[in-house]
Amino acid sequence: MNLILLEPGEVDAAGEVVLKAARAAHLAGVLKAGPGQLVRVGLLDGPAGTGTVLDAVPGAVRLRCHFDESVPPLPAIDLLLAPPRPKVMRRLWAQLAALGVGRIILTSAARVERNYFDTHVLTPACYRPLLIEGLQQARDTRLPAVSIHRRFRILIEDHLDGLFGSGLRLAAHPGAGQSIDALVSARPGERLLLAVGPEGGWNEFELALLQAHRFQLVGTGPRTLRSDTACVALLALAHDAAGRAAQATGGPAGG
Amino acid sequence: MNLILLEPGEVDAAGEVVLKAARAAHLAGVLKAGPGQLVRVGLLDGPAGTGTVLDAVPGAVRLRCHFDESVPPLPAIDLLLAPPRPKVMRRLWAQLAALGVGRIILTSAARVERNYFDTHVLTPACYRPLLIEGLQQARDTRLPAVSIHRRFRILIEDHLDGLFGSGLRLAAHPGAGQSIDALVSARPGERLLLAVGPEGGWNEFELALLQAHRFQLVGTGPRTLRSDTACVALLALAHDAAGRAAQATGGPAGG
Repeated sequence: MNLILLEPGEVDAAGEVVLKAARAAHLAGVLKAGPGQLVRVGLLDGPAGTGTVLDAVPGAVRLRCHFDESVPPLPAIDLLLAPPRPKVMRRLWAQLAALGVGRIILTSAARVERNYFDTHVLTPACYRPLLIEGLQQARDTRLPAVSIHRRFRILIEDHLDGLFGSGLRLAAHPGAGQSIDALVSARPGERLLLAVGPEGGWNEFELALLQAHRFQLVGTGPRTLRSDTACVALLALAHDAAGRAAQATGGPAGG
Repeated sequence: MNLILLEPGEVDAAGEVVLKAARAAHLAGVLKAGPGQLVRVGLLDGPAGTGTVLDAVPGAVRLRCHFDESVPPLPAIDLLLAPPRPKVMRRLWAQLAALGVGRIILTSAARVERNYFDTHVLTPACYRPLLIEGLQQARDTRLPAVSIHRRFRILIEDHLDGLFGSGLRLAAHPGAGQSIDALVSARPGERLLLAVGPEGGWNEFELALLQAHRFQLVGTGPRTLRSDTACVALLALAHDAAGRAAQATGGPAGG
């Protein structure tokens, strides 16, 4: 935990918060927090800041928080993902939030088993704490927006423009000739939507529909990766390419 | 399983092999293998090739294999890693082999708990099947060489030159100013050794020793990632940078 995220309702008007349970144990056990010590804090979807430990007793640590003036920007990359099996998806949530995504759009696809959408792993009760864990790891405060779509065609045709308007749309597809780097560097500073398909790939219909809706296909390299590894690798490549493109044009790093 | 890896001793002089247990079940269940069907095969640390199903009965599938003339090159990237906790390390093995590393050098570090080195997860009985799983995913045949070193200083001072001679040595360190991309593109075609530290980072002594032994520090971006996520992200960035550097000079992609 590199930053302690607080829900807005937890902090009183004087900027004080009392941490209990796991967060108190982390402060006491890992950070050895005593009065006067400074710790990194953040308000969920608000500014980051600094907390000063006022007092610490077993099971309860009281902090006074000072927050920055500005709220960090949302990461400039969104993810459209056909989810892997629930066990793998559960592990992916925190990693996605840590790598940095503004929005996570989960979609069905021909090669995703239908029952994946009926599991606990796709409920906010499961994924919200995991996303917060990832944000605390990466020192971010901006919770990715999550939406779940059981009908691929209706998502792409009717809802996607509302979720992701202008910007660069890329779909990872083994064997595609173009690279993330080349396409991102050609359009620096734009928001990016990255689509990652199911373990067996998008089918022909899905690929055609994506391309008809402004997605460009990008290759995934010579090695076929498991869907969760591919997701981490592709998000890292996209952030890196966006950062270099922004640097080359002197613009902001773009999240 | 995108390629079925065979141990050299499994294949007879006529190129025939009988697959049983999990591999037979995979062929029958997932690939619906029947006589005449072609499947991708590979000899461990040897060539890839094609297997023709001769016959398939429950629990046993017989293939005749034809192997390529040449053996795929080892990936041009090696990894020096201070291992994360055993549960996380267990999940990392297959991902490392899938992403592509020639050699995995595990080292102790001040911020790695000593007992991590006494677990089953660092025994060949545990990691070899996981590495093979990753190779089968990525369609590679070259098993990463693994060595385990309990004394960081002795590894770096006495053994590292024997494990990784000439080539580019990079150590990931939060806040370092240089990027993998810039350093790799300046030296295209060279083997690369990437060092990834423990969850809490390398300490000052370790950083100084690494730098005294030709490691250059590279940044890890604005977001602090968990050690396993960082490993996947950094290997993806290193492969991508090496591929682009090779392309720019017209050389081979370098694994």
